[in-house]
Amino acid sequence: MPIAPSPEAPLDVLGLGNAIVDVLAYSSEELVRELGLVKGAMTLVDEERVEFLYRRMGPAREVSGGSCANTMAALAALGGRPAYIGRVKDDELGRVFAHDIRAAGVTFRAKPAPNGPATARCLIFVTPDAQRTMQTYLGACVELGPEDVEPELVAAASILYLEGYLWDRPEAKAACRKAIAIAHRHGRQVALTLSDPFCVGRWREEFRELVEREVDILFANEAEITALYEASSFDEALQEVRRHVRFAALTRGPKGSVVLRGEEVHVIDAAPIDRLVDTTGAGDLYAAGFLYGLGRGFDLGACGRLGSLCAAEIIQQFGARPERPLGSLLDRLR
Amino acid sequence: MPIAPSPEAPLDVLGLGNAIVDVLAYSSEELVRELGLVKGAMTLVDEERVEFLYRRMGPAREVSGGSCANTMAALAALGGRPAYIGRVKDDELGRVFAHDIRAAGVTFRAKPAPNGPATARCLIFVTPDAQRTMQTYLGACVELGPEDVEPELVAAASILYLEGYLWDRPEAKAACRKAIAIAHRHGRQVALTLSDPFCVGRWREEFRELVEREVDILFANEAEITALYEASSFDEALQEVRRHVRFAALTRGPKGSVVLRGEEVHVIDAAPIDRLVDTTGAGDLYAAGFLYGLGRGFDLGACGRLGSLCAAEIIQQFGARPERPLGSLLDRLR
Repeated sequence: MPIAPSPEAPLDVLGLGNAIVDVLAYSSEELVRELGLVKGAMTLVDEERVEFLYRRMGPAREVSGGSCANTMAALAALGGRPAYIGRVKDDELGRVFAHDIRAAGVTFRAKPAPNGPATARCLIFVTPDAQRTMQTYLGACVELGPEDVEPELVAAASILYLEGYLWDRPEAKAACRKAIAIAHRHGRQVALTLSDPFCVGRWREEFRELVEREVDILFANEAEITALYEASSFDEALQEVRRHVRFAALTRGPKGSVVLRGEEVHVIDAAPIDRLVDTTGAGDLYAAGFLYGLGRGFDLGACGRLGSLCAAEIIQQFGARPERPLGSLLDRLR
Repeated sequence: MPIAPSPEAPLDVLGLGNAIVDVLAYSSEELVRELGLVKGAMTLVDEERVEFLYRRMGPAREVSGGSCANTMAALAALGGRPAYIGRVKDDELGRVFAHDIRAAGVTFRAKPAPNGPATARCLIFVTPDAQRTMQTYLGACVELGPEDVEPELVAAASILYLEGYLWDRPEAKAACRKAIAIAHRHGRQVALTLSDPFCVGRWREEFRELVEREVDILFANEAEITALYEASSFDEALQEVRRHVRFAALTRGPKGSVVLRGEEVHVIDAAPIDRLVDTTGAGDLYAAGFLYGLGRGFDLGACGRLGSLCAAEIIQQFGARPERPLGSLLDRLR
């Protein structure tokens, strides 16, 4: 698997992910418990369940989301050139999603599906500890498949960025396989974010093989990477990563992140914050900052620091899409 | 500089350091400010100043201390076999020091000086944030020199452990040089703790050369290692360490520690605590746990975890010498 500096590419990153509108509301700990939700995790639910949960949810705010789409939007907010592939229906929320991602500056050429399941939504219960508990109805995303992957778009981006959530649907997984093959054929790099510890649990063996053989850059948080290697501590997982993965950025919340590439290892502190509002999107924004730095040839430590600054920015607001341009964060890198 | 597994040695570690009795008292932030003390650091003071400061100090507790001596006492409390070389006068505090270190189980053969300056003391102002501000009168320690280094004792220990504080006196530095030469001649390893960021600032060039050429195992906290390499972040210092030092354990307070040996890198979390009482001795105890594990052939991650457990133990009590045997911490390593 060659890792060569990309020849000049018109796009920085092409993201492939579940196109989801987030429905965010503050929630008590009691409500999360009473509804039997797995706190801090992403759980897939069907249409009936999502409607039941929505009725129990407090006043909410709709914001375009989807882990990978958040990363692409943030990349654009930094001044980068991202594109995105994801599937929405031609309904209210689908139009909202398409509007928002284009307005953010992300190339998004997919046509909304005229029929089939509704645009996906993710109910996010934000508890007073700023943790988010996610209940996702995949809707139109279940129809994402290889036919959605435009080869020219893959070939045009230095990095192909995939979210692990896509492994939950066989057609989406096939789309990823197709995109990976095209990317490698064009000398592009492939990045994967592991998305969620439960998702990792469902696809552990496939992910292990994937990160060892197909993935050039791995993003994971502490819960995901320890789940991947069934490790009992971060350091134990880190030793496995160093044996099996060439290039990884591992995020640890307030403990910062650890970045490694070959023999290089960086231990990066979390960026300081004034007030923790909502951790939704921390990992997505870290990836955006990191990928932006990588595309600009920053050294690895600076990529990690920019990731931390972006993550710090997003956890001080409600929701996972940046409310303002992020270019000023670049000045804080020194 | 050979690093070979030590042939069987009767002692685990021989420590060489300033033999000091700590005088600990709780202090307000205001008092520290009013006295013009450099908070969190160790400052050397003369006899007149130490007496002035002692008069201003609240009710205090005298406990044998000295960074290296604390590490040796903790090694004994873990069940290890340490020895110690340091200089005291034949006065009240000198007898206290000798009694305590022997009662802790540390081999200590030095004869107290019949005359000359009094036994060293370190006034420690513990502020409500559990930080310690140290004012040291070196007294009898200033007479520590090459003649105090018993070659048989150096040859008998797997590891020679030196404290950076010794560099503040030319005779003590000469003692270190002599001990290092003997240790290497006998195939023993040499460990150094950098002791204090201001001490590092005073001897930066010498320490850089020393850790690159003579030291097999380096201990430093974040302030010390960033001072050594004049780095603006921990990660920047880490990159320097990886370039210049083969084996290092870098402590970061609540952020845990980073241990590296050759290409191996471990990121170790701080062990959990119930209540922070006094950070005095955290680094000394970390070194003890680490050295104990090393002597027993533990893998590096386990050495770091034992260091963290020992540090967590000591910061939950007042003072830097363990109040109880530490053997039970070994069970918590899994």
